[in-house]
Amino acid sequence: MTKINCYLEDLKIGARFGSGRALVNESEIKSFASQFDPQPFHMSGELSKDTIFQGLAASGWHTAAITMRLLVQSEFKPAGGLIGAGLDDLKWYRPVRPGDELTLDIEIVGIRPSKSKPDQGIVKLKVTTFNQKSEEVLGYTANLVVKRNVT
Amino acid sequence: MTKINCYLEDLKIGARFGSGRALVNESEIKSFASQFDPQPFHMSGELSKDTIFQGLAASGWHTAAITMRLLVQSEFKPAGGLIGAGLDDLKWYRPVRPGDELTLDIEIVGIRPSKSKPDQGIVKLKVTTFNQKSEEVLGYTANLVVKRNVT
Repeated sequence: MTKINCYLEDLKIGARFGSGRALVNESEIKSFASQFDPQPFHMSGELSKDTIFQGLAASGWHTAAITMRLLVQSEFKPAGGLIGAGLDDLKWYRPVRPGDELTLDIEIVGIRPSKSKPDQGIVKLKVTTFNQKSEEVLGYTANLVVKRNVT
Repeated sequence: MTKINCYLEDLKIGARFGSGRALVNESEIKSFASQFDPQPFHMSGELSKDTIFQGLAASGWHTAAITMRLLVQSEFKPAGGLIGAGLDDLKWYRPVRPGDELTLDIEIVGIRPSKSKPDQGIVKLKVTTFNQKSEEVLGYTANLVVKRNVT
């Protein structure tokens, strides 16, 4: 199901969208960590061995950022862009490792017009990120601001 | 209050921690967006004018990543590092703009031993990111895995 620039009225609860794939390599993991999450288990294979991760793992925020790129590039194209007001929850299920390949399952789980802004609504989007073994690595439900088709 | 490598038993509900400051500049905003959130309002001052943001704004995931760096560099130092299992919720209250300076308020709001793992517990950490006008830009409650002092 592909929708280009769809308004709130064009969306349906239960609609699902796929994404492309993102290969995560070791240098990207270390580079993101050095900028945003400088902890040993995200920076060094050697130093990560005796940590809870038992080996180099991507920052959870890096996984979330890659998920955003896959979402922007996905078939889900709300009018006005992907604009998050927040998340209901977020879970990091398991570490992302060098060589992992990520892909998304995207599902619309809620749609409601805004009470205060007649030209906007809120879409609840359930996003799950899987690795190449079809294991969940990240999941969240986002509240997105989507334009209404009012003229 | 500064704690270095503190275990679950060393933490108290209500304890608060500060952070350093992070200046966010335009090139960083565009660079993060080009890697992870390639949408016009995060990439171009010109293209962002007619969007909901009415000017260049940082990706919400960029704000979250900068918040993580401030958290890692803060006075809150749990033994074993800052390891997130997930978030209870997250809100992006307002856009972060070029030239904004971010700082955190960090508060422990929950502590409980793990039921399944006797050497671990979960700490609920309320994190709020403010700009230089003391306006909230981001807030979440994280569930962190923290080591227990068992020998």
